[in-house]
Amino acid sequence: MRFFQSWRAAQYDPENKITYPDFPAKVPGNIQQDYAEAFDFGDYIFADRVKQFDAIEDNWWVYSANIDFERKEDETLWFVAEGVDYIFDILLNGKTIYSYEGMFTPAKVDISEAKKGDLLQVVIHPHPKREGAPATRDQADQSCKPPFSYGWDWNPRLMVSGLWRDAYLETRGAAFLRSCEPFYTLNEARDTAQVRFVADCDAPVTYTLTDMEGRVVYSGNSPEVTLNNINLWWCNGQGEQYLYSWTATAGENTLSGKIGFKTLRLVLNAGAYDEPFGFPKSRYPAPITIELNGRKIFGKGSNWVNADMFPGTVTEERYRELLEMAKDANMNILRIWGGSGINKPEFYDICDELGLLVWQEFMLACNNYVGTPHYLSVLEREAVSVIRQLRSHASLAFWCGGNELFNGWSGMTEQSEALRLLNKLCYEEDFGRPFLYTSPLCGMAHGGYFFMNPEDGRDVFEIFAAASNSAYTEFGVPSMAPVEQLRKIIPEGELFPPTPTAAWLEHHGFNAWGPHSWVWYPTIRKYFGEPKNLEEMVGYTDWMQTVGYKAAFEEARRQWPHCSMSINWCYCEPWITAANNAVISYPNIKKPGYYGIKEALRPVMASARIPHFSWKSGELFSAQLWLLNDSPEAVSDILTAYIEINGEVIKDITWETGEVAPNTNKMGPTVNITLPRLSDCDEFTFRVKTKNGAGDSSYRLKFIPDPAAPKVRILNM
Amino acid sequence: MRFFQSWRAAQYDPENKITYPDFPAKVPGNIQQDYAEAFDFGDYIFADRVKQFDAIEDNWWVYSANIDFERKEDETLWFVAEGVDYIFDILLNGKTIYSYEGMFTPAKVDISEAKKGDLLQVVIHPHPKREGAPATRDQADQSCKPPFSYGWDWNPRLMVSGLWRDAYLETRGAAFLRSCEPFYTLNEARDTAQVRFVADCDAPVTYTLTDMEGRVVYSGNSPEVTLNNINLWWCNGQGEQYLYSWTATAGENTLSGKIGFKTLRLVLNAGAYDEPFGFPKSRYPAPITIELNGRKIFGKGSNWVNADMFPGTVTEERYRELLEMAKDANMNILRIWGGSGINKPEFYDICDELGLLVWQEFMLACNNYVGTPHYLSVLEREAVSVIRQLRSHASLAFWCGGNELFNGWSGMTEQSEALRLLNKLCYEEDFGRPFLYTSPLCGMAHGGYFFMNPEDGRDVFEIFAAASNSAYTEFGVPSMAPVEQLRKIIPEGELFPPTPTAAWLEHHGFNAWGPHSWVWYPTIRKYFGEPKNLEEMVGYTDWMQTVGYKAAFEEARRQWPHCSMSINWCYCEPWITAANNAVISYPNIKKPGYYGIKEALRPVMASARIPHFSWKSGELFSAQLWLLNDSPEAVSDILTAYIEINGEVIKDITWETGEVAPNTNKMGPTVNITLPRLSDCDEFTFRVKTKNGAGDSSYRLKFIPDPAAPKVRILNM
Repeated sequence: MRFFQSWRAAQYDPENKITYPDFPAKVPGNIQQDYAEAFDFGDYIFADRVKQFDAIEDNWWVYSANIDFERKEDETLWFVAEGVDYIFDILLNGKTIYSYEGMFTPAKVDISEAKKGDLLQVVIHPHPKREGAPATRDQADQSCKPPFSYGWDWNPRLMVSGLWRDAYLETRGAAFLRSCEPFYTLNEARDTAQVRFVADCDAPVTYTLTDMEGRVVYSGNSPEVTLNNINLWWCNGQGEQYLYSWTATAGENTLSGKIGFKTLRLVLNAGAYDEPFGFPKSRYPAPITIELNGRKIFGKGSNWVNADMFPGTVTEERYRELLEMAKDANMNILRIWGGSGINKPEFYDICDELGLLVWQEFMLACNNYVGTPHYLSVLEREAVSVIRQLRSHASLAFWCGGNELFNGWSGMTEQSEALRLLNKLCYEEDFGRPFLYTSPLCGMAHGGYFFMNPEDGRDVFEIFAAASNSAYTEFGVPSMAPVEQLRKIIPEGELFPPTPTAAWLEHHGFNAWGPHSWVWYPTIRKYFGEPKNLEEMVGYTDWMQTVGYKAAFEEARRQWPHCSMSINWCYCEPWITAANNAVISYPNIKKPGYYGIKEALRPVMASARIPHFSWKSGELFSAQLWLLNDSPEAVSDILTAYIEINGEVIKDITWETGEVAPNTNKMGPTVNITLPRLSDCDEFTFRVKTKNGAGDSSYRLKFIPDPAAPKVRILNM
Repeated sequence: MRFFQSWRAAQYDPENKITYPDFPAKVPGNIQQDYAEAFDFGDYIFADRVKQFDAIEDNWWVYSANIDFERKEDETLWFVAEGVDYIFDILLNGKTIYSYEGMFTPAKVDISEAKKGDLLQVVIHPHPKREGAPATRDQADQSCKPPFSYGWDWNPRLMVSGLWRDAYLETRGAAFLRSCEPFYTLNEARDTAQVRFVADCDAPVTYTLTDMEGRVVYSGNSPEVTLNNINLWWCNGQGEQYLYSWTATAGENTLSGKIGFKTLRLVLNAGAYDEPFGFPKSRYPAPITIELNGRKIFGKGSNWVNADMFPGTVTEERYRELLEMAKDANMNILRIWGGSGINKPEFYDICDELGLLVWQEFMLACNNYVGTPHYLSVLEREAVSVIRQLRSHASLAFWCGGNELFNGWSGMTEQSEALRLLNKLCYEEDFGRPFLYTSPLCGMAHGGYFFMNPEDGRDVFEIFAAASNSAYTEFGVPSMAPVEQLRKIIPEGELFPPTPTAAWLEHHGFNAWGPHSWVWYPTIRKYFGEPKNLEEMVGYTDWMQTVGYKAAFEEARRQWPHCSMSINWCYCEPWITAANNAVISYPNIKKPGYYGIKEALRPVMASARIPHFSWKSGELFSAQLWLLNDSPEAVSDILTAYIEINGEVIKDITWETGEVAPNTNKMGPTVNITLPRLSDCDEFTFRVKTKNGAGDSSYRLKFIPDPAAPKVRILNM
């Protein structure tokens, strides 16, 4: 039986063991949020009110509860805290009974000697900060606390801690089932599974396995069972998300979960052995093609960052809402960015159900995590806990050491002890699941994070057409927040035109990464001139984000199978940003860019390789036609392509694709059209229609009118 | 006490336990060599006589000895076989008492029940061969037997096995010292060492430490000692090879060894963070710069392959002879190529003494070693044995999974279980020592293996000047064997002109790797025309190898610190080849190419970047001058450069280098000379003389005379 307690929290003086006036605490949650609520911080997202948290950043805190529970004579009593952020002690009646560093390992403490009404406390130490480091993420480079809360280029510095997952008292009888975990191996044909349950219990355990139609396929005392004619689990777009349910029962205790059967390997991309060519001959790009159940698939999705500045407050409902939107956008993979750490278990359950493959990084990002004895010992404990918690999830695709650790701003290498340790632990605890040291590896790429590269003037169409990476695992096209969202964060008088005021800066409209991110005012001016009002300005950035993401994702798909993955930066955000590469404005507002991605990721679709975004009167427009198919079915269609400008259609051509095999694309002809001279037209659309419904595409492009350009005829064909 | 036995060997029928007529066996050795001697194979190196071994390739064998020893009442008796190649059983009086797969783990078997005269036998199983694999190294891809003996492009297929290391009876009293190993850590200033001995003994152990001057710096019972003001161990060319001697004594038992104190890391090469530039941004080259005792150094050396087709027969004297030549050639590192496996312990002792850093690969090469349960379990046991045997050597620089495993012909990746296992084992057993998955990694390069690339006509001068790799860890320029050596392997009538007869083929004069390797007849003809006789022909290949290796090594040094290592393929050879990239003809004949390398690796030297090898009358010759300094001292000199042709000197120029810092090069001016028109001259020499003795250089280049070329004046200046 579990007994949830009523907790109160307070600031704490560890030297004198003095507890200051207390306030109600939500568990799970984050103590700083409770404090802000109790002490009237107001809407902390508005303007620069987040700075109020600075004053309490280095506090000690204490959670207290006078415990309440019922138990039978022969039961032991335990205090279970599933996750405590980050360094903490557990005290019973003022005496320390447990101490730990790390937020991903449950604390399970025998407190059988406790009586009703006894004082149970969890003391939270100040956040870990490497001595001598500046007040940035650098402070996080000797701890396993996810570094995002130290501040990043899209979220403020807002350091949080506390009982971020459930905490409760638990009574345990003789037949208590401490844990049960299923493991399996598949035969070569992938139609038979050997399932093995590993339970930790002092009493006999019975197991059941039920299929998705509710049929019991096994029930018995043996922890090992062979299942024939199994259904495989597939990611979104490749098949069914078939999950078997299991229960393990000992006396009155039952644990339950799901199993999805799959094999997943990371294999070399097509053509990888040909690069580089000739002598002296170096090595090839790292393997980054997902082979799921023997089928090579294109990975398409987004980078998941923490869904809230207060991760402890995120509920299953919020996860579900965001993840269903990801599935609805035709994604099949999410990269759980290392800087955010690991999500609550519900997140992974939902990914199993929705078919979203999980690229799970450990809690390292953009730092050099030097392998000191203390750091390595904490990392080992925390990593083992994480691996054991997640390894049975069908959606778990592969592990990764963390974000951009091999790049200059981090400075780690294959020789870094922390990464060799993680590789070793994954090998030991989760044999057969791929492990990447970091992203990007050789051949893979991150960036850019703009619609147009200010250094060379190339737009996202040009940048990706010229690139030939094995996987684009981060790339961003920013847009401003929707106007109604901006009103929630920027004082009325500062809304337009945007200037680097405290509110805009705190919300990363400016100076996030160079002076212009993420509003990129100069880019807006270059393509559209000076915007007249906020609505128009936001609209321009939405246009660029929508067409930009569509261009980048479709280009990556066209590069398949040389390129095997496209994952934009990023999906969601932990508070309302003024401008960001994300396509979900906090907490759940779809920006227009979301629909650009959704369109670009349809399993079967017409697509066009368009050389660039902005076109002039008289310029020769050309677009190479493609039929993209990353579905497991063969398709064929007839495509019609034309420009629609000022309500008129210019030159439609048709292309009969013939059969396009499963998970294969086909290149068609290039359409050539000389653009007309016009005077009153700021945009045009290139459309590709499909006769058999494979999926139309349209690209909204910028038009620079020039009545003096060579005269061309507009035809309705 | 150790008792060495007198062994005889025989073919064996395992089913009927029948032993065929026996013959004397050398231990350590290889049973096939004993058999060949006993059954008159003759000089197996000559012509294609090596094929005689085919008939016995799949034999079972047995070693037998009627044991002889003395022991005291209270002593136990052990049979110790330090290495048995490859699958074997140990039998006492016909009963199997021990079975094992793997040649790098000593067998230590308690045979205390044995009496004098008892029959001790070691049954050797047939060589491991993956079922269904062709009769090539492919057969070795599921075992830990080094694959070279299955045949390679410079050595014949000649599969060997047996008691390749010492085997003896050992009596053990109560104070027997089973093992003792020293470990140490240095403080940050590297002047104080914490030494810790780990001994396996049931009696008290006393330890001594003695410095190189013979002073006892520690003597006592504590296994932990702090040494102040230590002397560091340096590799050849960077400082002293300072070694402390230790002994561990328990009763009458003593073990002893050496300690050399050093730190060694692999760090990123200079400028690695700048590559590749711009977005989308991939990762950087792998770290391959050696930082020894905090000093970044240029790694220069050669690839060590097995010194004999019968590795069991190699003695300390043969190792020493070859290794002293390597030191004398100014090398500071040897890459122990994975295909050859691991050498005997004496090899590493000598490397410690001579300052030759050891890049030690595991026994994987050019195959896809799939991680089956059986293979991984053997690999784990064998790798742990290897690591524990070598980790205390001062010369041991870093581990590497094996040769070219990430290249197309192997097909392994970072996800291969075997490599992840090796990484994990090295982390666990030898924390802090770098580990490479394979060579080459991203940025590093192997090849070419020719003086001129037949695909594009570029010679080795051009190839390396155009390359920009982080390390050249294999590259070859072949030459033919010295004439007197050729006479030992090729029948008289076939010596000239070389044609692909059985003898030439078996010795890899032709068809080693494409039709022309390693004689490269077309290249000889291209530069020199048809050779008149064998001596002339060999001389041409020596010329190319000498000047080619000099060019390639010096170019790599000029690319420092972007490039941090240059290791040619290869140093020695296991039998006499007809032509090879090696510079030592088996067993110990220095080819002229050896001196080319020795010259190119002098710590301080004049060098010239010369565009190519072959020059015509009237052509503009240019050479960029350099002073190369990879010594730990600053130098300066005055260089004089000129062409010497037909005994005349053309245009000498001087360059005062000014100070050139330790481990740094300096680029000087480019010399430009229009070549004269001559009719009777086939070569010329470009010379750079140094006034202060930094080290002259000369380059022997090909001249194509043309009296019709523009007239130029020869000047003596």
